[in-house]
Amino acid sequence: MISDPIDLCLARESIDTIRLLAADAVEQARSGHPGTPMEAAPIAYLLYTRHLRHSPQHPEWPGRDRFILSCGHASALLYSMLHLTGYDLSLDELKAFRQLDSRTPGHPEFGHTPGVETTTGPLGQGFAVGIGMAMGARFLSEQVDRELFDYRVYALCSDGDLMEGVAAEAASLAGHLRLGNLVYLYLDNHITIEGDTALAFSEETATRFLAYGWQVLRAEGENLAEIDAAIACAKEDPRPSLIIARTHIGQGAPNKQDSPAAHGAPLGAEELRLTKVALGRDPEASFVIPDAVHLHMTAAVNRGSALFERWQQRLNDRQAEPQLANWREIVERGLPDGWQEHLPVFDAAEGPMATRKASGLVLNALAPQLPLLLGGSADLAPSNNTVLEGEAAFRPGASGRNIHFGVREHAMGAILNGLAHTPGLIPYGGTFLIFSDYMRPPIRLAAMMGLAPIYVFTHDSIGLGEDGPTHQPVEQLAALRAIPNLVVIRPADASETTLAWRLAIAERRRPTALVLSRQNLPIIDRHSYGAAEGAARGGYVLAVEEGDLQALLIASGSEVSLALEARTMLQQQGIGTRVVSLPSWELFDEQPQEYRQEVLPPTCQLRLAVEAAASFGWERYVGDKGAILAMSSFGASAPAAQLLEHFGFSAAAVAARVEQMLK
Amino acid sequence: MISDPIDLCLARESIDTIRLLAADAVEQARSGHPGTPMEAAPIAYLLYTRHLRHSPQHPEWPGRDRFILSCGHASALLYSMLHLTGYDLSLDELKAFRQLDSRTPGHPEFGHTPGVETTTGPLGQGFAVGIGMAMGARFLSEQVDRELFDYRVYALCSDGDLMEGVAAEAASLAGHLRLGNLVYLYLDNHITIEGDTALAFSEETATRFLAYGWQVLRAEGENLAEIDAAIACAKEDPRPSLIIARTHIGQGAPNKQDSPAAHGAPLGAEELRLTKVALGRDPEASFVIPDAVHLHMTAAVNRGSALFERWQQRLNDRQAEPQLANWREIVERGLPDGWQEHLPVFDAAEGPMATRKASGLVLNALAPQLPLLLGGSADLAPSNNTVLEGEAAFRPGASGRNIHFGVREHAMGAILNGLAHTPGLIPYGGTFLIFSDYMRPPIRLAAMMGLAPIYVFTHDSIGLGEDGPTHQPVEQLAALRAIPNLVVIRPADASETTLAWRLAIAERRRPTALVLSRQNLPIIDRHSYGAAEGAARGGYVLAVEEGDLQALLIASGSEVSLALEARTMLQQQGIGTRVVSLPSWELFDEQPQEYRQEVLPPTCQLRLAVEAAASFGWERYVGDKGAILAMSSFGASAPAAQLLEHFGFSAAAVAARVEQMLK
Repeated sequence: MISDPIDLCLARESIDTIRLLAADAVEQARSGHPGTPMEAAPIAYLLYTRHLRHSPQHPEWPGRDRFILSCGHASALLYSMLHLTGYDLSLDELKAFRQLDSRTPGHPEFGHTPGVETTTGPLGQGFAVGIGMAMGARFLSEQVDRELFDYRVYALCSDGDLMEGVAAEAASLAGHLRLGNLVYLYLDNHITIEGDTALAFSEETATRFLAYGWQVLRAEGENLAEIDAAIACAKEDPRPSLIIARTHIGQGAPNKQDSPAAHGAPLGAEELRLTKVALGRDPEASFVIPDAVHLHMTAAVNRGSALFERWQQRLNDRQAEPQLANWREIVERGLPDGWQEHLPVFDAAEGPMATRKASGLVLNALAPQLPLLLGGSADLAPSNNTVLEGEAAFRPGASGRNIHFGVREHAMGAILNGLAHTPGLIPYGGTFLIFSDYMRPPIRLAAMMGLAPIYVFTHDSIGLGEDGPTHQPVEQLAALRAIPNLVVIRPADASETTLAWRLAIAERRRPTALVLSRQNLPIIDRHSYGAAEGAARGGYVLAVEEGDLQALLIASGSEVSLALEARTMLQQQGIGTRVVSLPSWELFDEQPQEYRQEVLPPTCQLRLAVEAAASFGWERYVGDKGAILAMSSFGASAPAAQLLEHFGFSAAAVAARVEQMLK
Repeated sequence: MISDPIDLCLARESIDTIRLLAADAVEQARSGHPGTPMEAAPIAYLLYTRHLRHSPQHPEWPGRDRFILSCGHASALLYSMLHLTGYDLSLDELKAFRQLDSRTPGHPEFGHTPGVETTTGPLGQGFAVGIGMAMGARFLSEQVDRELFDYRVYALCSDGDLMEGVAAEAASLAGHLRLGNLVYLYLDNHITIEGDTALAFSEETATRFLAYGWQVLRAEGENLAEIDAAIACAKEDPRPSLIIARTHIGQGAPNKQDSPAAHGAPLGAEELRLTKVALGRDPEASFVIPDAVHLHMTAAVNRGSALFERWQQRLNDRQAEPQLANWREIVERGLPDGWQEHLPVFDAAEGPMATRKASGLVLNALAPQLPLLLGGSADLAPSNNTVLEGEAAFRPGASGRNIHFGVREHAMGAILNGLAHTPGLIPYGGTFLIFSDYMRPPIRLAAMMGLAPIYVFTHDSIGLGEDGPTHQPVEQLAALRAIPNLVVIRPADASETTLAWRLAIAERRRPTALVLSRQNLPIIDRHSYGAAEGAARGGYVLAVEEGDLQALLIASGSEVSLALEARTMLQQQGIGTRVVSLPSWELFDEQPQEYRQEVLPPTCQLRLAVEAAASFGWERYVGDKGAILAMSSFGASAPAAQLLEHFGFSAAAVAARVEQMLK
């Protein structure tokens, strides 16, 4: 299609229609961002009509090109494009922009609107998610089928996207990996919310991206031929491409163009009227789509369906290829049969083992059954135990399953989202738990979108020892547990770690954070104590009281063994003590009340929670009469055993606390 | 001093001494990072003996140059330098490296060891904090006294620092601001934890920094003359400078040099012995400081004292200058008298007002009294109301009090730490509460270091309306409250906002986060209800029950007025209802139990907490029989009033819930 000359007259009419649809939607909502849709309309027009291989009636077609609106505040532009090109998004939805229960929320939300590829709004995220999508495409193309997955990722970015560190991290990795399937367009409009970008942003962006190894092109934002040629050139280059388009915020609005006033508020009735006059439209009419524009734009439907059919045909023709058959089965039917049959079983006799080590063993047992499981670490693979043994690295020109993210936790989080958007892939990423703080924005977005990346967070408490308080998580557990729709699992030993991985893999609709110890932990003797399968319910009775139930010890992770030891001491004194392992609050809270009360009988009010992390939130389980043995400050630098003792995490201290409570 | 020729023989002996001290310390601790100290010893030697204007006996001298070890894992290098140049850090402390209660923790900790300028370890943070320090120097130099504050900021950075997004954001701003007082040295050792840096990092760093507007220089890491000349050149340039030093991790260790094995574990007894042999030292002796080296290095003490005395003299000579006198008074005696006398008093009759708006008014009333109060926003100043009216912008060559951070929340957080390290300055920074997620690592470090930047977090709940779930905080309040030593205040109205600012300014030993509404809130009639001063205790009785106390409503921020309305409804039904405003959990929890029980009488178990955020943690206040009206999911995009109703935040819903609980 790209070889056709541009019908300039029809293009202009279409572009003005896009501009005004977006401005009308914002005006109607009395809220939103008209300026960016107006400036970016020519680019969006060219992309959707001449470059994107998309099929409006098959928005989930795996072989489609992806378009990301990284500047998510320009959502009215995206909705206008989706409506005009025939996606299932009516004009009424555009008129209900930013209203409750509409499909046109303030920022694009994945899963909410057909054609929205990822949730954007927090700047930089879309930019970095796109890099993950491009890596996913590269992986499928090299590992499954080259032609079927030769799709590209396009993104529209603003100044803010380029100022955010997460985009810088991701751009550096994209250049390193030579992701030629990336075509990014940057709206260089010289305006930010506080005024001219020159207030805070005077770097030479083009040079910076050249330094990353990108191709950099320039175009005038209103020059269709220039933009079109730049996109064509970007598609052909083996490097990722950044097209710097000099645009004008609020383009077409006589008094607000090039002003921050066009950014985050409706144009206002009078300015919108003047804009319509300037564009030669009826100033009194709103949401107008000329017939010629309608016909021209909806041609995307048939064109897209033909592309889709051809792809589907190719898929069917080649389904004898084992890689492709595998992929198709996973995408259409879910995880392959028997994927969890070869997992290690840990025996207490094997002696103590760090849960991070157990995690590495389980991961490597899973890998052969799950060819679309891939991931890595933010340069801590040997510590996180995230390497898939015998598998190749994800390198430029060779997409193995071991990804080296570099020291880029934030980009890793966003890239995992991009990989999770890729049909069939199960991505994971590791770092120290403390550095989950660097990647909260993409974790939150994964939870919001219902994506299911797996986070391997090791070195989970002061138990990491000498590295000291900068590396010792205290509040990170609470901060992760507070995120809606994220499952956090802190296994007590190697056996619970196996189960945690099983849960994380099986859970394909929300993200899971595995919280693992650096230090060795006893492997709990499951002949004497409750089976690790109990962890699937979030919490379970690990050790039943002998005699009457007098005290309840509730713990997670490394503190569970401590609780078991304390229980032995207490039972020796005749104090009937139960130990509950509570690796996942989210999973436990989802259980029926009956089960929860069976595990934590309301009749037993003497409850002590033990966790080497902030006490924040534990009141939920210990109740008014209970107590919490936890961290009330940052940690310190010393060998782990000394630190745990110093901060009160010993069996003797736990037992003493219970005795004191009994008095 | 720089003009003296380098005594190469003595220099080599000193450098080898540094290398071996660090390697011995790591070996003794059986934990730590020997490789980077060994490679960076020549640079550290040159800095501490020939460039840094420092005075080991006056580590807090305001006019000193700052040295930041951004690669904090190389702490053994810093401790060796501090010991050798005569700081109050004994050899025994070096021998107690990474042990409990030593002054030599695993990563450098500010306030813990004299001569440690900031806490580092989480990569990228030191890099960005240094930018804030350089801005602080620039500010003091231009606003207070040019000569007294012409100090420079030096930093030593690793690959990891340069890969982190926070450093990219900060570097872009530093180039923009032309911070010529920055001299950064980058250890280009080609090695990361996972292996060769080429696994994930192949960008042209030099070009990238040129794009930011930095001077970039190169030197061989073992070539003293080259490094020395590069530093001299960096000091003279009006741009920030990056010196790329090609170094070799583990330099001097015969079998581990240039290997990741030299990074994060002791060399091992045998390799350390071989290293000593290779360096011509006694292989059996540890912690050896040759006399000549001792004499040579401790010359820093007298040299430094002379510099310090000269500076002090100049300070005394010029103390008639009003700016300088002001600065001195603040640094020596604290906040100026009467600083809180001109704050606005808000009257209920003024009608509803967003707390973000009140915050802007208070901030502008404070500014004239506090000339060292400075700050800004990550490109949301008009929304955060963080502009100091009539004050100049912080620009290249003109350091006004209004800082334009750009869309760089993470760097803003770190820069605020650097500003807070600068004697006398009171820095603040604003963004939307949701984007506190982008800046958690520096917030945590501020809390750990006991620095007191002020965060202005506006748009604090679903009450922001149409922007939708990507912009609506849910779990952010809990996540901030979980950070030890951070004070979070969510004022209920304009009057509590005034008080919150007073607390934040008065609090010079820990950071404060102000959590403010976008939407208008009633100004509570303080004639009818409790005085806003109660907020100073974190929580207080805002409305006393009429008749017997039957129900307790506990709320913060925008939900307090809702609770008052609900109380009116409940009282009309004869239900004695108390409303407690709880703007700050941390401050309330610090009150004596007596006060807390007076506010929340244990006898009243019918408690309902109301907060438009995650319920996480509220169990602490409502107890076993209480309930929490909060968010259990992400928000949605719609006008605020509809959203609040939709998610159950209406007076009627609150009252109904209480009635239901009474049944």
